[in-house]
Amino acid sequence: MMLVLPCNNMYRVVVTDGLAAVAIDKLKSEGYSVDEISFTRDEILDGALRKYHAVIIRSATILDKNAIIANSGGNLKFICRAGVGVDNIDIRVANKFDIMVMNAPSSTTQSVAELTVGHLISCVRRIPEADRNLRKKIWAKKNLRGSELNGKNLGLVGYGRIARKVAKIAEAFGMIVHAYDPYLSHDLFGNTISYTSIEKLFSNCTHISIHCNLSQETKNLIGEDLINLMPKTGADGSNCGNHIVNLSRGGIVNEKELLVCLNNGKLTSLGLDVFELEPALKNDLINCENFVGTPHIAASTLEAQIRVGLESATQIIMALDGELPTNLINGV
Amino acid sequence: MMLVLPCNNMYRVVVTDGLAAVAIDKLKSEGYSVDEISFTRDEILDGALRKYHAVIIRSATILDKNAIIANSGGNLKFICRAGVGVDNIDIRVANKFDIMVMNAPSSTTQSVAELTVGHLISCVRRIPEADRNLRKKIWAKKNLRGSELNGKNLGLVGYGRIARKVAKIAEAFGMIVHAYDPYLSHDLFGNTISYTSIEKLFSNCTHISIHCNLSQETKNLIGEDLINLMPKTGADGSNCGNHIVNLSRGGIVNEKELLVCLNNGKLTSLGLDVFELEPALKNDLINCENFVGTPHIAASTLEAQIRVGLESATQIIMALDGELPTNLINGV
Repeated sequence: MMLVLPCNNMYRVVVTDGLAAVAIDKLKSEGYSVDEISFTRDEILDGALRKYHAVIIRSATILDKNAIIANSGGNLKFICRAGVGVDNIDIRVANKFDIMVMNAPSSTTQSVAELTVGHLISCVRRIPEADRNLRKKIWAKKNLRGSELNGKNLGLVGYGRIARKVAKIAEAFGMIVHAYDPYLSHDLFGNTISYTSIEKLFSNCTHISIHCNLSQETKNLIGEDLINLMPKTGADGSNCGNHIVNLSRGGIVNEKELLVCLNNGKLTSLGLDVFELEPALKNDLINCENFVGTPHIAASTLEAQIRVGLESATQIIMALDGELPTNLINGV
Repeated sequence: MMLVLPCNNMYRVVVTDGLAAVAIDKLKSEGYSVDEISFTRDEILDGALRKYHAVIIRSATILDKNAIIANSGGNLKFICRAGVGVDNIDIRVANKFDIMVMNAPSSTTQSVAELTVGHLISCVRRIPEADRNLRKKIWAKKNLRGSELNGKNLGLVGYGRIARKVAKIAEAFGMIVHAYDPYLSHDLFGNTISYTSIEKLFSNCTHISIHCNLSQETKNLIGEDLINLMPKTGADGSNCGNHIVNLSRGGIVNEKELLVCLNNGKLTSLGLDVFELEPALKNDLINCENFVGTPHIAASTLEAQIRVGLESATQIIMALDGELPTNLINGV
């Protein structure tokens, strides 16, 4: 006997930027129809999402004002960002059209924190440069002196989930952790030394890792002026130089100014997983020897993708069931 | 007034593979004459070290049986290895000629442990491969899925100073640490799970890091048979694959067999800082995409080189002063 689903259970969900297979299965097991389609910008602006009740996106699908207006007035009531950053969604416009926006913020914390530490070590020990030389049949042992993380001051710009996980690992290396986060009350910093200005953070730290959202306030926040404040000499007295890594969002660092600092030695190394313009194939940074680049893969692990998929599916199921999703971003 | 040093204080020390400037200064401040000369193998075999009372070497100078015999019978009474591994010195022959051998074992622990973790993250997150693609103007985001260290079993082959430091950092990542060390009594493993055979270690661990000396017992110890035992599936159930890093000594891993395993997928990634033959420029591993290579730089940090220099200088000063050096290797 065929099971005929009642009409009101035939919700349509579309996944536009991929999702773990177990998460797709979870949505289907609820009786939803699930499409996996990567729409072009034109298709989105033609209202391709209007027939769906819910859409699950990652960073590639841009749901700005025009995209949301073009897809309003139909079935669409729920947007879930499978990941953390919702800077590709115009929340205010979504709100206006009674569209709920959710995300999956905790699923990727561990993966991003691990790659952040990976970038830090890769920078100070010049691992990709070493590997690159070896492949070019150059045994650069004598030219590849690095420095230890141990005994150095690590400055975290932003002190949310990921930064706190980075802090824990950095402490195991013997780093002294400092942070600046104007949105966090003083008692939440634990052992981490907190500052009331970003200038004070940079003045005290040879190693900086960025963990904040992209906003008008943080756009081009990190540039030559802040780098000029960095001490170059480690808290342990060693000539370790200045090092910055950013795995949060492109555009928070001023790439042009950082390129100048990499070339004039004010910055000893720079590690980026995110870029102002992605794919970052015309970016001049990628030709610098003292630069380490990865193509926005901080959350690209097997484990994070399964967690983020399941967390996103759960949000959509709660929303379509009429419950209030636990990770609701806007105040619909 | 000139200070004329008494004859018996005019000890001659030669540094053959470089030493930190502060360490050279420390030796000179004792009144010793210090030469910094890189001898060829032929010069060594011609007895170039005979006129010196003490020689400070690193890994490049090979003091095997013939070299020690050629330099015996003169002033040479002390050999100090500025670093840990003394596999380039024939201790038994040195003993026979009443030549004391010392090393500087603790100076490099932190640097080696940090780069070991760097290799582990570089392997599982494919950082050099990502950077390499970016420089080739390939945005390989979708092809660069990695895996987390968190929740995985890390197996340490050997559980000395460096391994214990790696264990501490790995635990901060959320790894579960296992070890095999037949020379360590059971109660010295602490929280680390210990095994009575290396086969049991490999059977339980998807991630292996090697921290033992090169000896007849460990030569070609790690090969296809042990890799075949590795579980490929992480302790957390993820399909993370198998990963090995070696920053101890070349020759402990069977490079030919590991190359086969990298190519047939039994090994997901391999990170090496040391090679059977160095410089490793004709090594076939350096052309593998899933290989990460660095040119024996685990101890090449500013901090370690200063510590190793000062520790070596201290050993030589103790020896020339007639004291028993604290890091004496042989039983002279």
